[in-house]
Amino acid sequence: MDQRTTGEGDPFTVLTVGNSTGTIETEPFWLDRQPVVAGVRRGHIAQVIGEVESYRDRPQLKVTSLRVLPPESVDARTLLPSVGSVDRYWETLDGWRAEIRKPRLKRVVDLFYTDDDFRRRYQECPASVRGHHAAIGGLLKHTTEVAAIARTIARAAAADTELVLAGVLLHDIGKIESYSWDGVFGHTETGSLLGHVVLGALMLDRRLAAEQPPPCTETERNILLHLLLSHHGRKEFGSPVLPMTLEAEVLHWADNASARTASVAEALSNPANFPSGIVSSGIRGLDGRRFFRGNSDWGAA
Amino acid sequence: MDQRTTGEGDPFTVLTVGNSTGTIETEPFWLDRQPVVAGVRRGHIAQVIGEVESYRDRPQLKVTSLRVLPPESVDARTLLPSVGSVDRYWETLDGWRAEIRKPRLKRVVDLFYTDDDFRRRYQECPASVRGHHAAIGGLLKHTTEVAAIARTIARAAAADTELVLAGVLLHDIGKIESYSWDGVFGHTETGSLLGHVVLGALMLDRRLAAEQPPPCTETERNILLHLLLSHHGRKEFGSPVLPMTLEAEVLHWADNASARTASVAEALSNPANFPSGIVSSGIRGLDGRRFFRGNSDWGAA
Amino acid sequence: MDQRTTGEGDPFTVLTVGNSTGTIETEPFWLDRQPVVAGVRRGHIAQVIGEVESYRDRPQLKVTSLRVLPPESVDARTLLPSVGSVDRYWETLDGWRAEIRKPRLKRVVDLFYTDDDFRRRYQECPASVRGHHAAIGGLLKHTTEVAAIARTIARAAAADTELVLAGVLLHDIGKIESYSWDGVFGHTETGSLLGHVVLGALMLDRRLAAEQPPPCTETERNILLHLLLSHHGRKEFGSPVLPMTLEAEVLHWADNASARTASVAEALSNPANFPSGIVSSGIRGLDGRRFFRGNSDWGAA
Amino acid sequence: MDQRTTGEGDPFTVLTVGNSTGTIETEPFWLDRQPVVAGVRRGHIAQVIGEVESYRDRPQLKVTSLRVLPPESVDARTLLPSVGSVDRYWETLDGWRAEIRKPRLKRVVDLFYTDDDFRRRYQECPASVRGHHAAIGGLLKHTTEVAAIARTIARAAAADTELVLAGVLLHDIGKIESYSWDGVFGHTETGSLLGHVVLGALMLDRRLAAEQPPPCTETERNILLHLLLSHHGRKEFGSPVLPMTLEAEVLHWADNASARTASVAEALSNPANFPSGIVSSGIRGLDGRRFFRGNSDWGAA
Amino acid sequence: MDQRTTGEGDPFTVLTVGNSTGTIETEPFWLDRQPVVAGVRRGHIAQVIGEVESYRDRPQLKVTSLRVLPPESVDARTLLPSVGSVDRYWETLDGWRAEIRKPRLKRVVDLFYTDDDFRRRYQECPASVRGHHAAIGGLLKHTTEVAAIARTIARAAAADTELVLAGVLLHDIGKIESYSWDGVFGHTETGSLLGHVVLGALMLDRRLAAEQPPPCTETERNILLHLLLSHHGRKEFGSPVLPMTLEAEVLHWADNASARTASVAEALSNPANFPSGIVSSGIRGLDGRRFFRGNSDWGAA
Amino acid sequence: MDQRTTGEGDPFTVLTVGNSTGTIETEPFWLDRQPVVAGVRRGHIAQVIGEVESYRDRPQLKVTSLRVLPPESVDARTLLPSVGSVDRYWETLDGWRAEIRKPRLKRVVDLFYTDDDFRRRYQECPASVRGHHAAIGGLLKHTTEVAAIARTIARAAAADTELVLAGVLLHDIGKIESYSWDGVFGHTETGSLLGHVVLGALMLDRRLAAEQPPPCTETERNILLHLLLSHHGRKEFGSPVLPMTLEAEVLHWADNASARTASVAEALSNPANFPSGIVSSGIRGLDGRRFFRGNSDWGAA
Repeated sequence: MDQRTTGEGDPFTVLTVGNSTGTIETEPFWLDRQPVVAGVRRGHIAQVIGEVESYRDRPQLKVTSLRVLPPESVDARTLLPSVGSVDRYWETLDGWRAEIRKPRLKRVVDLFYTDDDFRRRYQECPASVRGHHAAIGGLLKHTTEVAAIARTIARAAAADTELVLAGVLLHDIGKIESYSWDGVFGHTETGSLLGHVVLGALMLDRRLAAEQPPPCTETERNILLHLLLSHHGRKEFGSPVLPMTLEAEVLHWADNASARTASVAEALSNPANFPSGIVSSGIRGLDGRRFFRGNSDWGAA
Repeated sequence: MDQRTTGEGDPFTVLTVGNSTGTIETEPFWLDRQPVVAGVRRGHIAQVIGEVESYRDRPQLKVTSLRVLPPESVDARTLLPSVGSVDRYWETLDGWRAEIRKPRLKRVVDLFYTDDDFRRRYQECPASVRGHHAAIGGLLKHTTEVAAIARTIARAAAADTELVLAGVLLHDIGKIESYSWDGVFGHTETGSLLGHVVLGALMLDRRLAAEQPPPCTETERNILLHLLLSHHGRKEFGSPVLPMTLEAEVLHWADNASARTASVAEALSNPANFPSGIVSSGIRGLDGRRFFRGNSDWGAA
Repeated sequence: MDQRTTGEGDPFTVLTVGNSTGTIETEPFWLDRQPVVAGVRRGHIAQVIGEVESYRDRPQLKVTSLRVLPPESVDARTLLPSVGSVDRYWETLDGWRAEIRKPRLKRVVDLFYTDDDFRRRYQECPASVRGHHAAIGGLLKHTTEVAAIARTIARAAAADTELVLAGVLLHDIGKIESYSWDGVFGHTETGSLLGHVVLGALMLDRRLAAEQPPPCTETERNILLHLLLSHHGRKEFGSPVLPMTLEAEVLHWADNASARTASVAEALSNPANFPSGIVSSGIRGLDGRRFFRGNSDWGAA
Repeated sequence: MDQRTTGEGDPFTVLTVGNSTGTIETEPFWLDRQPVVAGVRRGHIAQVIGEVESYRDRPQLKVTSLRVLPPESVDARTLLPSVGSVDRYWETLDGWRAEIRKPRLKRVVDLFYTDDDFRRRYQECPASVRGHHAAIGGLLKHTTEVAAIARTIARAAAADTELVLAGVLLHDIGKIESYSWDGVFGHTETGSLLGHVVLGALMLDRRLAAEQPPPCTETERNILLHLLLSHHGRKEFGSPVLPMTLEAEVLHWADNASARTASVAEALSNPANFPSGIVSSGIRGLDGRRFFRGNSDWGAA
Repeated sequence: MDQRTTGEGDPFTVLTVGNSTGTIETEPFWLDRQPVVAGVRRGHIAQVIGEVESYRDRPQLKVTSLRVLPPESVDARTLLPSVGSVDRYWETLDGWRAEIRKPRLKRVVDLFYTDDDFRRRYQECPASVRGHHAAIGGLLKHTTEVAAIARTIARAAAADTELVLAGVLLHDIGKIESYSWDGVFGHTETGSLLGHVVLGALMLDRRLAAEQPPPCTETERNILLHLLLSHHGRKEFGSPVLPMTLEAEVLHWADNASARTASVAEALSNPANFPSGIVSSGIRGLDGRRFFRGNSDWGAA
Repeated sequence: MDQRTTGEGDPFTVLTVGNSTGTIETEPFWLDRQPVVAGVRRGHIAQVIGEVESYRDRPQLKVTSLRVLPPESVDARTLLPSVGSVDRYWETLDGWRAEIRKPRLKRVVDLFYTDDDFRRRYQECPASVRGHHAAIGGLLKHTTEVAAIARTIARAAAADTELVLAGVLLHDIGKIESYSWDGVFGHTETGSLLGHVVLGALMLDRRLAAEQPPPCTETERNILLHLLLSHHGRKEFGSPVLPMTLEAEVLHWADNASARTASVAEALSNPANFPSGIVSSGIRGLDGRRFFRGNSDWGAA
């Protein structure tokens, strides 16, 4: 919701309305139609009827009617950006998970991944609030990408692929308690105070403690906790300890590769980043870097 | 244990022997007396009889007899540097702890501080392996200093002094599982993999979970965990989250003030740091800074 | 003074008026009442009569009359934020100062602290222009806090408490020539060009040079100048030399502890930092950190 | 070659001799056998006959005869560490290269990869002088790993996999002119003055300029040069421009993942890094980090 | 072009019009005269007739008529900021160039500096897009300054002055392909993807390759390429290699000295940087530093 | 003085003896001749008679007789490295100083530069203890270089050349009280505690205060003090304030250019930095950079 003034000084209001498929700006509401948008606030859910037109080469929604709905009338999650159906991610991940054969490792992973409550929350959770994979289902998509990359790196580096995969599956579990996605993406109080890295370690520690007999040895628990704690790879990025095992190193780079390339892909696909041609303006969330979206068919027909 | 060669090329051996009161170098063992020191290794416990002499203004131990003892024959802790009797620290800390009146806060702190096992380990543990307060009892001394400083800062900043004190008492509990002090100071496997900051948070979390009914609310637990996790004050220093409450900020600066000034005091009192006068060489553990030990009586009689 | 436009596009003006007890926003001045605020500028002194009302849970001043006053008609200092009566700070500081017994140290400190002109300026000066203790009397309040904290640290670290206290009393004297507080807080030309750290050293150096016979030895003068110059503790923070004595180290941490915890306390007490709940937005002057103002009574009745 | 002195002061010499399969220390040469090693220098090629024994749990070569050979008598490359047969790397890489179908992209890549001289040098070159994959054939092995990882990331990020693969194949070509491997690994004069990143870009630019008609358009040449120049990902790491395309971002993370995990794997497999147990000392080339080589079978039979 | 609103809420438009001698703001265009500026956009070329008046001590253009012209009707370069006639810079530079007597060095430099096309582009090119010497002719002016400074440093450091001068003349040639100056200053696609540092090296390399027989030896080419590549002096500033020769070091500091002092001189001469007196606000392009434009005649008549 | 052991284990001693023209190593003193060097210590002054021979391409002093002299028997300064006669530097500097015509500026500069005591100390003082121009007379040579460079930059940047020159002449005066050069180069106690930057400002301030009537205005004094304080250009490098005037900026870059290029020239001329060819090992005092001393005659006869 944005109040602006024309070059001629006439004030007007433009709404940005969105659903799970994207966002679009409305036509301007001039003074005479301000009553239509009078009570609208950021985060409100509304029924909007109108027609998509084009203004200066950008799509614009001509609004016929706009009605704010009570919060509980709609499942807010259906209106947030979403990765779509998560079935294919589960299929891939569960398939790879089945390859974990070491008994105690399998047992620990399954404490979470055979728990329906966990699966339901995990498949809804975004991978970040404003950065990469910030969408319903984003965390699951990110996890699947990290798993694919980590498996490839693990083979190249001769790491323990089962342990790497377990690390991938557990490394971000803290996010389901750190993020909220009821209408807008945000941080929970717990997430703000503890951070998703440590919160994940606490969640794993608590889950293990709840199981009798212990599903793994103390050293094994430490190795897993270390994988979670060190996956950001640098203290400045919130990891209180740096990777000390090959598997932790593999996990870190796979996580980084998925997160960073997704961020760049999202920046390149956002026309708002390219106000004046094929070189973008400096992108804030990516160290102020500029991007280039020129391309070529390299002579392909 | 140090093998050296004279300007004339004659090899000799010098031992550094220590007990809880300090260390001293022996006279050189020349070739003819090498058999005396043949089997001695770093960390060995030995019975040494001799006489303290002076060589070039430095004390030197003239050894009459030297006998390596079996490890179990002596309590190794009695031979490490030590802060001496810990009674006065307990007296001070327990006195201040008694001022905590908020019921649930008191209950949480007492889970540890009325536990004899905890007290026994806590009063032995060093505050660091090679840095400040690296001595048996050093952690308790450090805790007492932090408490005194934190109380003063808390009053100045109008922070919740009870919560600050609880934070002081709990902030370093992870060290008793992170450090080892059986003969030499070192890190445990758990301490290496998790770090004492997060390990402390896990220990608090586990202890709270073991208690029924819960000794505090979930938000209260988060506030306490946050105090532990953020007390290093900067991510580069191993805190995965930065202080978000006034009490966490107070704790951080009090901890820093005790640790850093103790390090400087120790550097200034170590003659080895002043090989050529009143300005030291660059001290590695203190950012390579130089120190000045000149002083004055300011006209005092 | 802030010109804004409503959601409906109607322009209006809101004044922020303040006196020594705080600031409050006025009701909006719409187009029809713009003449009332036409000549008002930032820094003007005005007589404002009105009534405090409430608008969306925030207090708002409904203005009955507003009259800009000539600058000389009012003592501008009485209108700036203020710590209130400074008597208690003087009482505390002068008491501690009396404990300095080393003759030449006492003499140096008293050159300033028994000088009425110095005391008058010192007790008015803010401790910063926009940061911590930015209030009339703020420097004296800050000095008292630093003294309390430094004394506690000094005892813990076995530093020379008299020298530490002298350092506390002198470390910020440069601020009374670096800052201005006539109507708004600002920097003097001298303060901009030399900085308060070096300016303090110059002021001490000049004052000592003006005294015959010299109140202290040359080494003593250097030790004091070093205390002033190194008190920011890091070159990036404007100290041209790093602390080389235990007393300089103690002073640095005490100064830091007072300044930083005061900044956090001020950030936490400012509702404008908490636009959307109990977690703040990122605070610019505090490294962009977020803060948490949730709390608990821990079961206290 | 290392001259040492015993605890008893007796000097002796120990050689470290190596071939492509590894290195081993000799038994000590005492004074009486010094003539045997008198003329030996670092980098010399020698025929050594002896027997492997064990001393304090470490293997040791008991030397029967030792004869220094003239430099030209042996191909020095056969004595350097080596990754072994490179056939499997070529097979994999050439297979993937065959999947590049865009005509001009294929043409550019083949300018190098169908050139026998290039292939011969490329398959000998190490990937670094002292870091990861520092072995004959190391560059080819590293390239194969980067290709595998980059393809996985490219699929996850929906990047142009053909262009990514071309970038992988070309990104390190500058190393064949920057490094030397005649007896010991080193840097060429050109490599020192220009660096392998820019040298690779110059080599590509020259090769393209030598072809008539031009194998690709000017924009395509720029896109490829950009891939080479930006692949270190940060200016501090020697990339004069930062990745601006999704393919450059993918290449950077794949390169990093291969290089860093290989370095960690090498550090973990080197017993010299673990002088005192399962936690290593700080490893210089890896930011001084410590590593952990404890492990577990997780209950596997 | 700036739309604003008065304190009274009346919207208006102010244009900033400029030609090669500078820029000036127009009087406000109120609602009634908006049609005059309706079609004007940033970068448009317009014929503006009016009168310069003064408003609140700042000059203001009272516009009588304003007519947007077709882009091709005027040479856009004549309207950009300009350093004026470039003859004196050529005279100085060509004079110094004539002092290069080493045959192959002279030959390389003359490949560019006797090429009329090169000279025409070089004398138009700005030295930066928004920073120092951002003016038509700025690059030539900057080059002349760097040459003067570098010659002085070279003499002091006993460097090879001919080689230093050659480095000065060639170090920024990449800018003529990296920048564009048709109407506004900008970056070319090639400049964005490769950066002017490497692009200059490629241009030199290509030019040398086009000459038969080679104008210099391979080592000489490397020495020159190194001068270009290293002239930013630090990797963070875009130099992929750091200066390894005395001449490269001299070039770097001369370049820096010209660029930085020009930036400061420009900041000091811009009244917009001094909104409130003789100390500026923090200048963004200069690390946020503040500047002082007070001065004195030091008693000169 | 260096005790070493041969490959065969025979201990020996090598002296490094030097005078103002350089240093040379002696032949080894074997066990039988140890008595000759028995009492020699670092810093001793000795009369050495011998012959220069060559050993493995390096010069070596074959010592016939060696006699330690009493400290007072020789002026130690004559044995330190030296820039030689300082007359030409004085001639240049005094000539340029004569061009300062602004009365009060000239008066301030002459307070120092017409003072014979000052001139005597200034012309002996090194410009650093271990870095650039570390030689008797080095400070004067450095000052002359900075003056030449600063004058050139000042003209390019249209700065006040008289003020810049005054800044050059005064910027390092603190070094004559910060450094000592009696036998070896070192730091004074005052220099360690205050640093030469602030010490210079104090010396200027005291000298101005000693003059009646004041030789300049207060603003002028601040401008000069600012020049001294800011000349290191960055807080990390010990300047408590950053350059705020164009003249301070010019001074900073001229100082940097002289110091850095001198350091590089010295590193390049030291054969010890090039143990293995034309590329040096990493040079500690120059950020670990490597240097290249290959060169070419570019076809000159």
